[in-house]
Amino acid sequence: MKRVKIIASYDGSHFSGYQVQPDARTVQGELQKALARMHKADSWNATGSGRTDTGVHSLGQTIHFDTSLNLPENRWPMALNALLPDDIIILEASYVGDDFHARYDTVGKEYIYRVETSKVKNVFKRNYCFHVREELDLEKMQKAASHYLGTHDFTSFSSPRTAVVDKVRTIYDVSIDRSGEELTFRYVGSGFLYQMVRVLTGTLIEIGKDRMNAEEIPEILEAKDRALAGPTIPGNGLYLSKVVYSEEELSKLLRR
Amino acid sequence: MKRVKIIASYDGSHFSGYQVQPDARTVQGELQKALARMHKADSWNATGSGRTDTGVHSLGQTIHFDTSLNLPENRWPMALNALLPDDIIILEASYVGDDFHARYDTVGKEYIYRVETSKVKNVFKRNYCFHVREELDLEKMQKAASHYLGTHDFTSFSSPRTAVVDKVRTIYDVSIDRSGEELTFRYVGSGFLYQMVRVLTGTLIEIGKDRMNAEEIPEILEAKDRALAGPTIPGNGLYLSKVVYSEEELSKLLRR
Repeated sequence: MKRVKIIASYDGSHFSGYQVQPDARTVQGELQKALARMHKADSWNATGSGRTDTGVHSLGQTIHFDTSLNLPENRWPMALNALLPDDIIILEASYVGDDFHARYDTVGKEYIYRVETSKVKNVFKRNYCFHVREELDLEKMQKAASHYLGTHDFTSFSSPRTAVVDKVRTIYDVSIDRSGEELTFRYVGSGFLYQMVRVLTGTLIEIGKDRMNAEEIPEILEAKDRALAGPTIPGNGLYLSKVVYSEEELSKLLRR
Repeated sequence: MKRVKIIASYDGSHFSGYQVQPDARTVQGELQKALARMHKADSWNATGSGRTDTGVHSLGQTIHFDTSLNLPENRWPMALNALLPDDIIILEASYVGDDFHARYDTVGKEYIYRVETSKVKNVFKRNYCFHVREELDLEKMQKAASHYLGTHDFTSFSSPRTAVVDKVRTIYDVSIDRSGEELTFRYVGSGFLYQMVRVLTGTLIEIGKDRMNAEEIPEILEAKDRALAGPTIPGNGLYLSKVVYSEEELSKLLRR
């Protein structure tokens, strides 16, 4: 058996998230079905770097699985894409050591959150951006975002519905860029808690609307109280963008 | 009764085209249902500038209907959008004279066709661009497109499945722009025959791939034989972009 690492892009609009569930269309479910067919088996296991929720997209979800097939690395994407539905695309594949683990070996992740600010919603962006009618104050949001940097307990900025006990994470980089009516929020961190990027961005948007102040962020972090942060905004604007497995890959992300 | 003219944008991905059909989800069907609800009637008629096929999108489909309601112009989009599914958005509404007709009064239309040229398909563009794996020769396509300009019988460049007898149309402007991996083909004309933009663009792509020559276009037009032109490419890259009702609006389009 050889272990394969693949990078998958998917449009989350019509998936009940990444993780396999009975009677629901999931990314892992579709991938495992394709792998089972390739291996002429009843089922086949694939392990992702982590879950993504309903409606959340991927530009770089990373997954591993073991195989008995002897396919050259560069044939794997084509072979899988031929069996996968058209809202999942395998971008890359490589053979890795038996000890590589897509979930446990992550060193960092990059997430992107896209927001459209316009009076009239663009019908083509409805599944791909969170729509905000008001203009947002970019400078205020950037000031607030700088308070996220570093190592903090992010209890206030994540969903309480989780079994995870240690809520300390490190954010290495946050940036917000505007291009026309679109804002792109980019986060690089050691890892992210359940719904964390959606609460971090939801809170920045409240600040951009002048309903909260940038200076409240340190107090909210300190309080460890989810009720104090902004709303959990929808999954449709969220993209798992990159998963890195070495300090070298991480520093490349941070140099961008 | 007053006549209302509206401009509708829609994502054609999940519609069986514009025109109402029994047992199929259509743009006109959804709009007429919303109008019937607003007017507390069993049905309500709406007339579009023309059909769009399955999967074809709109940035500016223009539609008229009559109303007994006394709503200010600027309330119409909001009122309709509240009742319409989220893949149709009404952008504008205005009261027009009783003699205005969205179909018969058109002076010109603009269509856009988007093509993605890349080795690996972008999963987010699968419903919005036609994907071509090869690079296309922009200069050759532009040279070929210039032969489309002017008044011609477009029998060779449209589907024979139509009741329309007069196949003479005028193309006022064609342009092709590249932005990264995306090509945008733009056509302004007096009117377009069934599947005409898809055949015009499909033929340009054959020329961009060096499978046909720009110099063949005049002969193909002359021959009035559909078999000589390139393939009818899919509807997913096609957008009805603008419908104009006066020479003034048309010249504004051409000055862009």
